[in-house]
Amino acid sequence: MSATATIEKNAYEVALENFDLAANALDLEDNVRAMIKYPERQLTVTIPVRMDDGKIVRFEGYRVQHSTMRGPAKGGIRYHPNVTIDEVKALATWMTWKCAVVNIPYGGGKGGITCNPKAMSMGELERMTRRYASAILPIIGPEKDIPAPDVYTTPQIMAWIMDTFSMMTGYPVTGVVTGKPISLGGSLGRNEATARGCFYTTRGSMKHLKIPLKDAKVVVQGFGNAGSIAAELFHEAGRRCWRATIPKALSTTRKGSTFRPR
Amino acid sequence: MSATATIEKNAYEVALENFDLAANALDLEDNVRAMIKYPERQLTVTIPVRMDDGKIVRFEGYRVQHSTMRGPAKGGIRYHPNVTIDEVKALATWMTWKCAVVNIPYGGGKGGITCNPKAMSMGELERMTRRYASAILPIIGPEKDIPAPDVYTTPQIMAWIMDTFSMMTGYPVTGVVTGKPISLGGSLGRNEATARGCFYTTRGSMKHLKIPLKDAKVVVQGFGNAGSIAAELFHEAGRRCWRATIPKALSTTRKGSTFRPR
Amino acid sequence: MSATATIEKNAYEVALENFDLAANALDLEDNVRAMIKYPERQLTVTIPVRMDDGKIVRFEGYRVQHSTMRGPAKGGIRYHPNVTIDEVKALATWMTWKCAVVNIPYGGGKGGITCNPKAMSMGELERMTRRYASAILPIIGPEKDIPAPDVYTTPQIMAWIMDTFSMMTGYPVTGVVTGKPISLGGSLGRNEATARGCFYTTRGSMKHLKIPLKDAKVVVQGFGNAGSIAAELFHEAGRRCWRATIPKALSTTRKGSTFRPR
Amino acid sequence: MSATATIEKNAYEVALENFDLAANALDLEDNVRAMIKYPERQLTVTIPVRMDDGKIVRFEGYRVQHSTMRGPAKGGIRYHPNVTIDEVKALATWMTWKCAVVNIPYGGGKGGITCNPKAMSMGELERMTRRYASAILPIIGPEKDIPAPDVYTTPQIMAWIMDTFSMMTGYPVTGVVTGKPISLGGSLGRNEATARGCFYTTRGSMKHLKIPLKDAKVVVQGFGNAGSIAAELFHEAGRRCWRATIPKALSTTRKGSTFRPR
Amino acid sequence: MSATATIEKNAYEVALENFDLAANALDLEDNVRAMIKYPERQLTVTIPVRMDDGKIVRFEGYRVQHSTMRGPAKGGIRYHPNVTIDEVKALATWMTWKCAVVNIPYGGGKGGITCNPKAMSMGELERMTRRYASAILPIIGPEKDIPAPDVYTTPQIMAWIMDTFSMMTGYPVTGVVTGKPISLGGSLGRNEATARGCFYTTRGSMKHLKIPLKDAKVVVQGFGNAGSIAAELFHEAGRRCWRATIPKALSTTRKGSTFRPR
Amino acid sequence: MSATATIEKNAYEVALENFDLAANALDLEDNVRAMIKYPERQLTVTIPVRMDDGKIVRFEGYRVQHSTMRGPAKGGIRYHPNVTIDEVKALATWMTWKCAVVNIPYGGGKGGITCNPKAMSMGELERMTRRYASAILPIIGPEKDIPAPDVYTTPQIMAWIMDTFSMMTGYPVTGVVTGKPISLGGSLGRNEATARGCFYTTRGSMKHLKIPLKDAKVVVQGFGNAGSIAAELFHEAGRRCWRATIPKALSTTRKGSTFRPR
Repeated sequence: MSATATIEKNAYEVALENFDLAANALDLEDNVRAMIKYPERQLTVTIPVRMDDGKIVRFEGYRVQHSTMRGPAKGGIRYHPNVTIDEVKALATWMTWKCAVVNIPYGGGKGGITCNPKAMSMGELERMTRRYASAILPIIGPEKDIPAPDVYTTPQIMAWIMDTFSMMTGYPVTGVVTGKPISLGGSLGRNEATARGCFYTTRGSMKHLKIPLKDAKVVVQGFGNAGSIAAELFHEAGRRCWRATIPKALSTTRKGSTFRPR
Repeated sequence: MSATATIEKNAYEVALENFDLAANALDLEDNVRAMIKYPERQLTVTIPVRMDDGKIVRFEGYRVQHSTMRGPAKGGIRYHPNVTIDEVKALATWMTWKCAVVNIPYGGGKGGITCNPKAMSMGELERMTRRYASAILPIIGPEKDIPAPDVYTTPQIMAWIMDTFSMMTGYPVTGVVTGKPISLGGSLGRNEATARGCFYTTRGSMKHLKIPLKDAKVVVQGFGNAGSIAAELFHEAGRRCWRATIPKALSTTRKGSTFRPR
Repeated sequence: MSATATIEKNAYEVALENFDLAANALDLEDNVRAMIKYPERQLTVTIPVRMDDGKIVRFEGYRVQHSTMRGPAKGGIRYHPNVTIDEVKALATWMTWKCAVVNIPYGGGKGGITCNPKAMSMGELERMTRRYASAILPIIGPEKDIPAPDVYTTPQIMAWIMDTFSMMTGYPVTGVVTGKPISLGGSLGRNEATARGCFYTTRGSMKHLKIPLKDAKVVVQGFGNAGSIAAELFHEAGRRCWRATIPKALSTTRKGSTFRPR
Repeated sequence: MSATATIEKNAYEVALENFDLAANALDLEDNVRAMIKYPERQLTVTIPVRMDDGKIVRFEGYRVQHSTMRGPAKGGIRYHPNVTIDEVKALATWMTWKCAVVNIPYGGGKGGITCNPKAMSMGELERMTRRYASAILPIIGPEKDIPAPDVYTTPQIMAWIMDTFSMMTGYPVTGVVTGKPISLGGSLGRNEATARGCFYTTRGSMKHLKIPLKDAKVVVQGFGNAGSIAAELFHEAGRRCWRATIPKALSTTRKGSTFRPR
Repeated sequence: MSATATIEKNAYEVALENFDLAANALDLEDNVRAMIKYPERQLTVTIPVRMDDGKIVRFEGYRVQHSTMRGPAKGGIRYHPNVTIDEVKALATWMTWKCAVVNIPYGGGKGGITCNPKAMSMGELERMTRRYASAILPIIGPEKDIPAPDVYTTPQIMAWIMDTFSMMTGYPVTGVVTGKPISLGGSLGRNEATARGCFYTTRGSMKHLKIPLKDAKVVVQGFGNAGSIAAELFHEAGRRCWRATIPKALSTTRKGSTFRPR
Repeated sequence: MSATATIEKNAYEVALENFDLAANALDLEDNVRAMIKYPERQLTVTIPVRMDDGKIVRFEGYRVQHSTMRGPAKGGIRYHPNVTIDEVKALATWMTWKCAVVNIPYGGGKGGITCNPKAMSMGELERMTRRYASAILPIIGPEKDIPAPDVYTTPQIMAWIMDTFSMMTGYPVTGVVTGKPISLGGSLGRNEATARGCFYTTRGSMKHLKIPLKDAKVVVQGFGNAGSIAAELFHEAGRRCWRATIPKALSTTRKGSTFRPR
């Protein structure tokens, strides 16, 4: 879920407020609220990485499991200079709700590393990713928590996580991440899946809200993997599409073309 | 280590400053600093507990592993209303240093729950402890991280942690905690060990500093398990001993007699 | 299989006699008889339970695996004051035959606790179930032996067994029981499955025996989950249905409405 | 503990009566009695064995764990035509008490197979032992329950159990049985240990009871491994020793020389 | 793959030459060649077997994993007096290529024992197979390497391997071998699968090469499981079929009827 | 055991001949010979390593377990251009005998990589060692087979093996290798242990053979870790010591100072 709109308020505060609004609307009893409002586990790890110039730099990484009540936690890992534990907590919370709304047997998780992947070489990214994966190993796995690509994390990065996890088991565990390279067992169509979901949901909502499709303008905020492909899909469906300007402070989602490490 | 003096500055900031002072004194190179300064893992967990009145209350618990480089992490778990993740991070850091200074093959860890154990029944404490133990299970164990009693945590609480852990393995794992009840494999003399260490260290330091023992006044700050027994030991050794007044805001260590749940 | 008719002879003796009748009819050689006649494993466990009034009461529980030659053992767990190890052995034996007759890759198992669930609170039932589950843990599992609801055991009880088992593995193992609540991964239609099987089998047998369906009277012995739903299905199929009177001493299956703990 | 005196009453009933006598003497509260009186687990297994003449014969074997509260269960396995589950339950109960009385961190277990080892070849004994070991595998192990030789079970039989268990782990697990052959890690002096314990205990009791040692007559009931060596030890200590006549119906311990399979 | 034609050159040298030819044709870069040319693991084991006459004979067995990059290794086990490690290495290499060509997620493995199964009894074959299986256990499994029948290895032999492996896990692991007996979970049609594949491939190749099917002569080299069934299939498809004479030195595949141990 | 004398005959043939000589002298029966003469397992692995210049070079590594009957296999790993599987088999065989002669509960193993460590950088050595360790992982471990330093393998190399193994378990497993750096749990005095053993053995043999120590000349063949320290110990003991010239073709042990990677 890379193209999340974030606003100036701390994302996690927003998530908690949303929870209360919904819980109030449902007249949810206090005991249930206490059970499902807060993240089950938040893990923060230190990731020392030897950079190509020989210096060791310390990064901070996160993995949050908001809920595993309905099944293993599920959610992406993002690499971005602005990633904070609160953002990750909010995203994990939303993953719980998203999985529950579409009734798939997964809970909600999310992870991230505060780093600038665009300024890192492939070697640096690999060493950082493997160290991060090894630090969160005890709490992930096909039955526990299944990471996925997110902002600036690629199939290659998923392959490194899978390989690090598989060293522990002694054989390839393809189920530990989604968004792997197709040659390692990844799913066809996965790359476009977020965008396609956005497209179908939008189309469905418009129908539900009786908004006429004809001549509707579609505004896409963010132009990463999710936004750019969604734009294409809307375009193919015969609609005009403009890209929004995203004020720097408001979003971890960067404009521009597909991310490649230097 | 229950009788830690805390000052108004955030304990973790103090620990980091101490690190820098020592590292500067040693002219430690930057790469080594990056490897050993920060905690390897910080885990925060949500602990919903059904209270005796039927209400579910949510507590927040922590387990921090500052370093496992020299062996499994080792360090207590404290139950106190003022416990914060930063306090736990500081204490875990200090555990690393303490184990290294006396050259035992352990690293540094620490845990805690923000709660008021004095206002909780045995049943509430047991349910909270077991839920906490089960949430931190994936990162503890005799080879990974070994909790111990600390402020307001008792041998009984260690027994609950050991039992919860042992449910996962299918047989009693005595090595997962220290400070167990003696009947479950705890060590004789463990109760007085912190105080006795304090006493020996003080006596050794005084000798090293050539402070004459005769007529020395010993001031003990805190009167929990560590402080009160240390006071006795100093007293037995023929020295006068006063208890300090501890301003409420400065310490998580409460004055008074041995803690018993209501 | 809750609505088993039992007669005055010990159920296990009946099962052994049935075996001999069938084996004789097949001219089965002695070596094969020695391999498949008797239960592979019979486990009896002591279950101390703290009742709501504070007293600890000791119950006796059983889990019998008659055969795992064709796959994991499969069979229910019953809670009833008259449950004996011999009844459980008989039922496990019959499960082996039932699975073999319909050619599914499972063996036969059965379990039970001698108790009066109608006189127990939810809390008492939960504590008894979890203790029982934990005592039989080493021999059950999705690959070994898979319990299910039976006389006076409900989806809720299966959920407790699943949760106790899952504490050992560290993540939810839905495959360890069938008859779970649907929200925990249970199957739709499971509740009516025994009755529906009875209905289809009866209809098939009548066709095979050329008994005309028209105006046939259907007598249902037992009115628990299996009997009452079967009665409905026969009724819906346009047949009259009377409930038999079941002499108390002959059956562990009680008449009456769906079981609810007090 | 092979040389146990048995009387006409069922051994398990005797054990329960002994328990009540002791518990009454201690004024033990009912809740504690409910926790520690009965065996935790009793496992009965069917053991089909191909005999040397090609026929498959079915034996019945047992393993009872009376208590694992103070540590792994500990106790022998006996092969005898008169072994019953009740005898094994009694012996397991007594093992709990014996371990507790001498304060070693073990609980009480016992096992057996109803068979006539004197009429079996080495090959038949091996096949029976390995099948039995494999049937009780899930509940034994160095951390759970540790078998030992008993009536008519030899170091060779322990070696087969150890080897069968080790096939499951993939490497030799010497800790799974005591009484192994010395070349496989058995302890020196183990063979004489039961008798030596008997000798020391008797000597200690006589001192305690102020019975003069001089000219005391020592009567030894049973002349297996325990009895015959005890007789030697008493004899060496300069005392006369007669062997008692043991009425056949009263004891599973047979008179005569060391057991050897035909 | 039982009916492999072998020529006088060492099979493994042939495989390496084939690799170079293909790699040159593809202009494959040297680094990739270094990664995929040679077998990852070659395990040679000593298999002492007690023969029916009481003598212990030592056999040599092999298991080679050429590649596990695309998934678990997959490949048969052959029993033949001429089996060598080099033959097994060649066959494992070809298995990698075969799996890759038809794009199934498996790598390439192969195994064998240098022995004359035609001169061995069922008991000797079972003891040899179980010992071999137990020696290669650490590197096989449903996620690592999955054996199958090959020259002179039957479903019965697969059943022994599966049973030996399952003793380690404690429950039946059907996924550890293919070619099991159908009653133990084997696949219908497996017996004819190699021949059927040969038939479809030949038909497809002829179509591709525009060789007219009418009046084509089909020559089958080898008359084991693969060859004899392929001959039948070609025959059924209306073609004449002759069996080739196979010079003894050229093939490990023996002419003649289905193999049965004496 | 780095300073092994090798002669022109293949080392493994020598070992087999030695075996026969000893077995004949003992009149050892054929069945026992068949059980203990040959190595239980020989594993050959391909080790692709990315060199500092970017090229991937393929090395071949070995691990042989001659016998695990008396305990886990024990034996060093050597890095040398002349290492062959036959040399490793011979050395593993000798390790079995050495452990048995001094009656310690270990079997015999040995490993090696055919490479020129003197021409490799630290990075290349690390990558090669980790890949080798990961390839032999399934058959090593504290309970199975415990490597050690040997010709041109250092404590640093043991640390890499230990770390690679520990990634699989999730915590440091110090017991998987001996000869670790002291800071990681290595034993004091380990470095000099081989030489000291040689010194004590020689002194003992001379006493046994009644060779007068006075004026004895000691010739040391090889000047690596074992030879050079032995020379020192003999020298300290007051004996003159010359170093032998070792013809290049006869020994894998090179003259010269302690090995350091370039």
